[in-house]
Amino acid sequence: MPTVHSYAMSSPTSAFGPFELERRAPGPTEVFIDIAYCGVCHSDIHTARAEWPKVPAYPFVPGHEITGHVRSVGANVTDLKPGDRVGVGCMVDSCGTCEFCQQGLEQFCRRGVWTYNSIGRDRLPTQGGYSQGITVERAWVFRIPDNLDLARTAPLLCAGATTYSPLKYYGAGPGTKVAIVGMGGLGHVAVQIAAALGAEVSVISQTRSKEADGLAFGAVDYFAAGEDGTFRRLMGRFDLILTTVAAADDFTDYINCLRTGGTLVNVGMPSGVTSLWIKALSNRKSVAGSLIAGRAEHQEMLDFCGAHNIQATVELIGAPDITAAYDKVIASQVRYRYVIDASTLG
Amino acid sequence: MPTVHSYAMSSPTSAFGPFELERRAPGPTEVFIDIAYCGVCHSDIHTARAEWPKVPAYPFVPGHEITGHVRSVGANVTDLKPGDRVGVGCMVDSCGTCEFCQQGLEQFCRRGVWTYNSIGRDRLPTQGGYSQGITVERAWVFRIPDNLDLARTAPLLCAGATTYSPLKYYGAGPGTKVAIVGMGGLGHVAVQIAAALGAEVSVISQTRSKEADGLAFGAVDYFAAGEDGTFRRLMGRFDLILTTVAAADDFTDYINCLRTGGTLVNVGMPSGVTSLWIKALSNRKSVAGSLIAGRAEHQEMLDFCGAHNIQATVELIGAPDITAAYDKVIASQVRYRYVIDASTLG
Repeated sequence: MPTVHSYAMSSPTSAFGPFELERRAPGPTEVFIDIAYCGVCHSDIHTARAEWPKVPAYPFVPGHEITGHVRSVGANVTDLKPGDRVGVGCMVDSCGTCEFCQQGLEQFCRRGVWTYNSIGRDRLPTQGGYSQGITVERAWVFRIPDNLDLARTAPLLCAGATTYSPLKYYGAGPGTKVAIVGMGGLGHVAVQIAAALGAEVSVISQTRSKEADGLAFGAVDYFAAGEDGTFRRLMGRFDLILTTVAAADDFTDYINCLRTGGTLVNVGMPSGVTSLWIKALSNRKSVAGSLIAGRAEHQEMLDFCGAHNIQATVELIGAPDITAAYDKVIASQVRYRYVIDASTLG
Repeated sequence: MPTVHSYAMSSPTSAFGPFELERRAPGPTEVFIDIAYCGVCHSDIHTARAEWPKVPAYPFVPGHEITGHVRSVGANVTDLKPGDRVGVGCMVDSCGTCEFCQQGLEQFCRRGVWTYNSIGRDRLPTQGGYSQGITVERAWVFRIPDNLDLARTAPLLCAGATTYSPLKYYGAGPGTKVAIVGMGGLGHVAVQIAAALGAEVSVISQTRSKEADGLAFGAVDYFAAGEDGTFRRLMGRFDLILTTVAAADDFTDYINCLRTGGTLVNVGMPSGVTSLWIKALSNRKSVAGSLIAGRAEHQEMLDFCGAHNIQATVELIGAPDITAAYDKVIASQVRYRYVIDASTLG
């Protein structure tokens, strides 16, 4: 059993500290990955601090935006070899046989295994990527295109999949007007993906503090929700609105910014309840949800990002910085994703 | 200018009383209809009592579930003749040239004219069907199939169109499980339409008081939202849920009753705000709106109801009963739609 250095929280309110984590020895269809980088996702924080219903076992190691290199492969793994550049996202297993797995929608598999706070095929709680190594089923290991930087690619494994899938599914492309609400870890990737898909992209952020970045990421317009008259001005403008913000809120203003037949897709993760004036949907508008992406779509997203040179904008941090980084994520102080340099976890 | 007997409210709080209403003389493309019956829709009440933002001019004559006979036609109307059985719904005109009119989605035309509380092509406020006659553009007059009763068909002009359109658009049909929430004026028609479309239909009502009727209308299951455990039992069951209730509420329980990829369509008209736990939508679920139907779809709906012998279950009332009927509608005491016998308006 390989033991790896990791950083864990020992309770919902503790700081992060070093933790020696046992990984299972890779089976014949599995891969052992030397982790190079792991992004800090807002979901890590919600889970680690027990803010969501499913409380993890402690010590708890979060992290599902993982990149690194293959160290070893099981006997039946023929298409990856030591040294290959790879990534792991929010899931590490699924049943492979249900209606969803058959359709490439493994994210909806009822027996899906999440990268952390789930029960793996070894019947042990899964632990995430704030660690120096991980054992993963080959099917859930994705190749990183050569031109992408491993540190800047780590966030794509969650933020990229989470935004690419609904942007494609709900039709972002040439001739469509798409608004990205919120330009944080998810939003700043979504702007790049939507623009690369050919859509005319706007950002709706609370203020204009990130406007220059938004335009650099590919937006053609940038609006501040906090400014008077913004929503009146945007009424009926967008075919698709992707909300990436974590704050529960009222969606009516955003629904009113949709064209007839338009869709607002939420990928933010508010803990509370959202409100809306339901009659605002009358013109065949809809509010939809989405959940990461299927296996094949993860690889498709990474290849798409490679082809369009889409990467996250990140701030590299070391192990001792993780606890403080959590508070800065909550205060929206990160530009735009913290990524842990796994070499500092030792 | 033909003058017709009608019943009107003189203020948001008045009772209904007789009112002599002037209709315009039919132009070359218009039809004058002798009204036989008019349904009492909850929207009539909201409008007449000034509960919605757009307050009508008083005296105000509601009514948009109209059936009757053609009395006369303009010179250019060649496909209708005096005596023909016809109906008029929620709209009486649209621009005919915008993107929506071109697609047969006239209900979204920005220059659409509603049957009441709108401004007609004569620049006068439109007045509805609680009257003995109405002048309507031929394009907005629909034929009633011979086998349908005019009194029982009147509610289809709103309740039928409002439920038929989203049931078709969102895929109710063989192999789908559809739930109709609420079995009032809209719901009792929706159950019949969804069943005739081939769906496996359930009703979710507050209590079981209408269960026998629901099964007679074509439902195979009937659930009481007020009973313990109902929502737990229905988790993940339905492909499509159509909510027809007027009460603003929290939709989370209903969203949880959807299968992955399912849609909840609301056609109820709550005055207040609706809440939901947005993460309940994660499995590509959506909450959508809908608005009556386009012109062609109105005729399609009536022909479908004719082919499947779908009619509303109604209680006929006379002019003096309208005021009391409003309160009974609000108290859910009607089985299932009040219909005014227009001969009593004189």
